[in-house]
Amino acid sequence: MPKLSFASDYMEGAHPAILKRLAETNLLQSAGYGTDEFSEAAREKVRTACNAPEADVFFLVGGTQANATVIDALLKSYQGVLAPESAHINVHEAGAIELGGHRVMALPHTNGKLSAETVLAALRAYEEDETREHTVMPGMVYISQPTETGMLYSLAELTAISHVCRDHGIPLYADGARLAYALACPENDVALADLARLCDVFYIGGTKCGTLFGEAVVIPQHGFIPHFFSIIKQHGALLAKGRICALQFDALFTDGLYGTIGKTAIDAAGRIRGALKKYGYTEAYPSPTNQIFVLLDKEKARRIADAVSLSFTESIDDTRCVIRFVTSWATTDENTDRLIEVLKEA
Amino acid sequence: MPKLSFASDYMEGAHPAILKRLAETNLLQSAGYGTDEFSEAAREKVRTACNAPEADVFFLVGGTQANATVIDALLKSYQGVLAPESAHINVHEAGAIELGGHRVMALPHTNGKLSAETVLAALRAYEEDETREHTVMPGMVYISQPTETGMLYSLAELTAISHVCRDHGIPLYADGARLAYALACPENDVALADLARLCDVFYIGGTKCGTLFGEAVVIPQHGFIPHFFSIIKQHGALLAKGRICALQFDALFTDGLYGTIGKTAIDAAGRIRGALKKYGYTEAYPSPTNQIFVLLDKEKARRIADAVSLSFTESIDDTRCVIRFVTSWATTDENTDRLIEVLKEA
Amino acid sequence: MPKLSFASDYMEGAHPAILKRLAETNLLQSAGYGTDEFSEAAREKVRTACNAPEADVFFLVGGTQANATVIDALLKSYQGVLAPESAHINVHEAGAIELGGHRVMALPHTNGKLSAETVLAALRAYEEDETREHTVMPGMVYISQPTETGMLYSLAELTAISHVCRDHGIPLYADGARLAYALACPENDVALADLARLCDVFYIGGTKCGTLFGEAVVIPQHGFIPHFFSIIKQHGALLAKGRICALQFDALFTDGLYGTIGKTAIDAAGRIRGALKKYGYTEAYPSPTNQIFVLLDKEKARRIADAVSLSFTESIDDTRCVIRFVTSWATTDENTDRLIEVLKEA
Amino acid sequence: MPKLSFASDYMEGAHPAILKRLAETNLLQSAGYGTDEFSEAAREKVRTACNAPEADVFFLVGGTQANATVIDALLKSYQGVLAPESAHINVHEAGAIELGGHRVMALPHTNGKLSAETVLAALRAYEEDETREHTVMPGMVYISQPTETGMLYSLAELTAISHVCRDHGIPLYADGARLAYALACPENDVALADLARLCDVFYIGGTKCGTLFGEAVVIPQHGFIPHFFSIIKQHGALLAKGRICALQFDALFTDGLYGTIGKTAIDAAGRIRGALKKYGYTEAYPSPTNQIFVLLDKEKARRIADAVSLSFTESIDDTRCVIRFVTSWATTDENTDRLIEVLKEA
Repeated sequence: MPKLSFASDYMEGAHPAILKRLAETNLLQSAGYGTDEFSEAAREKVRTACNAPEADVFFLVGGTQANATVIDALLKSYQGVLAPESAHINVHEAGAIELGGHRVMALPHTNGKLSAETVLAALRAYEEDETREHTVMPGMVYISQPTETGMLYSLAELTAISHVCRDHGIPLYADGARLAYALACPENDVALADLARLCDVFYIGGTKCGTLFGEAVVIPQHGFIPHFFSIIKQHGALLAKGRICALQFDALFTDGLYGTIGKTAIDAAGRIRGALKKYGYTEAYPSPTNQIFVLLDKEKARRIADAVSLSFTESIDDTRCVIRFVTSWATTDENTDRLIEVLKEA
Repeated sequence: MPKLSFASDYMEGAHPAILKRLAETNLLQSAGYGTDEFSEAAREKVRTACNAPEADVFFLVGGTQANATVIDALLKSYQGVLAPESAHINVHEAGAIELGGHRVMALPHTNGKLSAETVLAALRAYEEDETREHTVMPGMVYISQPTETGMLYSLAELTAISHVCRDHGIPLYADGARLAYALACPENDVALADLARLCDVFYIGGTKCGTLFGEAVVIPQHGFIPHFFSIIKQHGALLAKGRICALQFDALFTDGLYGTIGKTAIDAAGRIRGALKKYGYTEAYPSPTNQIFVLLDKEKARRIADAVSLSFTESIDDTRCVIRFVTSWATTDENTDRLIEVLKEA
Repeated sequence: MPKLSFASDYMEGAHPAILKRLAETNLLQSAGYGTDEFSEAAREKVRTACNAPEADVFFLVGGTQANATVIDALLKSYQGVLAPESAHINVHEAGAIELGGHRVMALPHTNGKLSAETVLAALRAYEEDETREHTVMPGMVYISQPTETGMLYSLAELTAISHVCRDHGIPLYADGARLAYALACPENDVALADLARLCDVFYIGGTKCGTLFGEAVVIPQHGFIPHFFSIIKQHGALLAKGRICALQFDALFTDGLYGTIGKTAIDAAGRIRGALKKYGYTEAYPSPTNQIFVLLDKEKARRIADAVSLSFTESIDDTRCVIRFVTSWATTDENTDRLIEVLKEA
Repeated sequence: MPKLSFASDYMEGAHPAILKRLAETNLLQSAGYGTDEFSEAAREKVRTACNAPEADVFFLVGGTQANATVIDALLKSYQGVLAPESAHINVHEAGAIELGGHRVMALPHTNGKLSAETVLAALRAYEEDETREHTVMPGMVYISQPTETGMLYSLAELTAISHVCRDHGIPLYADGARLAYALACPENDVALADLARLCDVFYIGGTKCGTLFGEAVVIPQHGFIPHFFSIIKQHGALLAKGRICALQFDALFTDGLYGTIGKTAIDAAGRIRGALKKYGYTEAYPSPTNQIFVLLDKEKARRIADAVSLSFTESIDDTRCVIRFVTSWATTDENTDRLIEVLKEA
């Protein structure tokens, strides 16, 4: 029996519906670079799901590339992107944003979430700085839904940030790497259509939500980024066989799969949270989604890590650390049971 | 019946052996970013096939990304890459190399091939230029095997270029987007092991040679590019589910599939070339691989394009143009027959 | 007696009127970064001379920086700059344009001059290319007046290029590193006001035209490049003591000095051209300005180079080369006499 | 009488010895780009002053350019520069470092100074991070002497940082924009030779220390940055008339002028500090150099700003702010008296 793993939500291949779709279309011929009918059909399904009939939709190969390409497309050379300090672009993209010439302007946050007030304060600080022309201008806002710590923006919070952005004429971009897990969460009140209405660009995560790879970038207002195709190509983010990514999203947006694919993960996370409570563990963040962060002593953490593969451990002090369990669309009840047993015994 | 297409070699999905490999491993769990056992197994198979037991092997998502990432990794900021004017990086990558800060230093070529003499002349011109410190320094050589026009470097030609590069201390990089079609070609005398011996970096093409996507970058000398993992990540070329790309190459390098997968294409191309000759057409380049370029009058080209999907047409003058037929691992005898019939009737 | 030099027009310090202006203002205090009254006064004089009362005028430290900063400001990331193959940005700026992420799209030229037809053909080739979204988009045109080979665009030629640019919605930029020598040339019919009318941005050369350093970038339409101040700063092209550059242009644009400062150079060049003709030399280009290119056998070139410092020699074949003599605002009659004697004796 | 100004140390032109040197050499001819005898003589004087006989010395046009060029030369694409959060490169260079593709990795500091412990902690945090290959690697350390808040590193502190850097194999770079004011300060125990011994690169400030413009970049170990000339050119930081910058440093390094030019400023600052104390003001930082930061209520600050030009005001809260007075080599006793009178009356 292989070692139990709650390391991440990209540990398996793809949802069976996706493999099926790829297999059944495999030997059909189609044009390249997303100009084919499969890609157009998938785009249309995404538009419908987002209630954004005019949206430009592009299928990119991965999250870092989606972020780097979109941000480079939205910013002027002298602008930076406002983001929570914990943002993926600030922490785990090896300088991809800087490679494009831009600063990640890290802001204070609460469990990975920016507040409208924080964004407003940053924009005002720039505007009121007499030396502002010698500084990096904030040119857009990056958030992620859910955040890197599994938290959700409420519709009210997202609306407030969107208003600040629009008042100041800068775009709002949401990284939805784990968006399916937000959508499957009972606490969530932000629908795809809300993202399309409140953001200028966002991406619907595939890699962590059941595809082999790929993310769907949605630009609700058609033509908002001129020549985005060339920008994607220049950033190396254009698939020759564009349909391979599109077909996966076609499967995810058939019969509402994207809205439900995260439910397994949320249910499993709920059971794990119940066990954590029962056995006296402390959650580090009040995450309602598929990432569970546990604050515990290092000795106990080591015992758990011996039994379960984890990919995230943060040292807090000499004796305590935070570890993370991630559930996914592919998590089995059996493995959840095994994890709960480990938590009980540790 | 869908329209006949000889537009490119990325019109279908993947070789059945690849889909099978993905399906049979689909729900197994593994670590991310290429650190898993599947990826290591695939790397080992590539090393063996290249007779390069120490090689660093990385699976990247696509050709433009592989080129941009490798070239940016090999060059200093003030250096450019010597390449034939027809090179993919010069013509069809939307400025990806320039985005990384580097000039593509386009050189004259014969049917897409650089000669050792041309490379040497460019290097000497730099060295003898008294103002060279005010110019872009040639820092590496880019070639493709086969070239964009389907031509092959012979072992002698490749050896000569390699010697010039090594004499001048600059790396040689080969883009093998269509490498399987070279390997399947009777005229070819450059084996994978020769590329590994004569190049400093090269990539083994997947996208056009039977994978859903992905290319295998081979660096024969271990550690030749320090921190290449971070460079890949920074360039957005790192797959979270690294195994998805690796498993495809695993399939291609099982039972020598990569060496034979191009045979169908070469056989079909041979039959098409026979028909072209029989019906009085003129080939534009003496390509022995899976791309066939035909010089013909525009009227006739239009008639053919009505019957067959093509993706490449180059106007020569008011009355003549060049069109391209591309065969692939997936080309069927039936479609080749249909194309020959079109050529006969046009 | 130091060796005679006709190597370039940046061999001396500054025109005495400039040193005088710097000396007389030396201990006055003023604000930094061009926000002072001296800078505003100089800008106003430049506006008046260009008949461009609304123009934005910026004083940058040098030509390569002016080119790199303006071009980076005008282009989108996926665009390149159309320029004659002989352009300074293509030949002698060590990849500064590429450092900003852009391709120099080198075009054929006549003695360094682009024709409107060549520009039009390049723009049409892009527009008609079905794969254009995979290529670098031409986003602006760069020319120099005079060219690197000392040639002048006529008003008719410049007007034609300007029309092509405006028809296609792309900016025209003129590098005026040696502009004073054009203005002092009897053959010239392009006034500063014509440049301001026909170009979207141009720079008035200082370094080669009598200043210690510095170039004046003129943007005739106010606000055409938003936040250009920040762009200059980001490119390291902003002087803290902005007035030091501005005061030099103030001197050059007082009493029409910029219009006459090149006359000494043109007169000396005329005498040298007379001697070349008299002694049977062949000019390589029909340059009417302060650069004289002579085609001669290498043996003779060596004898001349023994007697006169030169900075440019281009080998043509085994026996012939081109050498260059450059006169300047500081060329003395005595040195011109000495050069003519050398030409006679060589 | 013009308004009294203590806004900065770049308010005047150049030290008279510099103007004299420029005037007396003005019409002599010399080669360009720093290849002339004047430049070599100046380099030799800098080497001697730094006790670094093998040093490479380059004269660049300004501070932002020196920083951007050096940092881009020292870092690999995937590396960032460790710097105090208050660093000029982090605060006031409009994203010049990011334009080169690099992150400024801002660290906590004390009055603008990094400690060896902070640097060590940052390097260790990277080394111990299991995901470090997904993050930006710290590739060098940037400090400034004096800091942006006028503070000095002691020899012991600088030595400690240098040791940490060398232990970890990364270069240490010191920005000496106001270095003359450190050297003239009685508290200072870091000589030029110490910087040359402990840093891998540093620059000797000209612009704020008496030149018209220009900074001298010193690389103590010859050849430490290969092709730095081309890198400077590519970054637009190379002066055609290189001697114009070199001659100014020649004057500064003749008869020890650079060591004493800051004395006037330090003496004036001492008198102002005395008055501040006498009249009950509070200094915000214990700066011993030519920048004096005063914490006071906003009402009083406004009264002072009515009488004296200032360029720096930082709001602390609703009622308090910090203002800055800067003295320079050109500060007159009369103006210091006037400022003291203002402080007394405000």
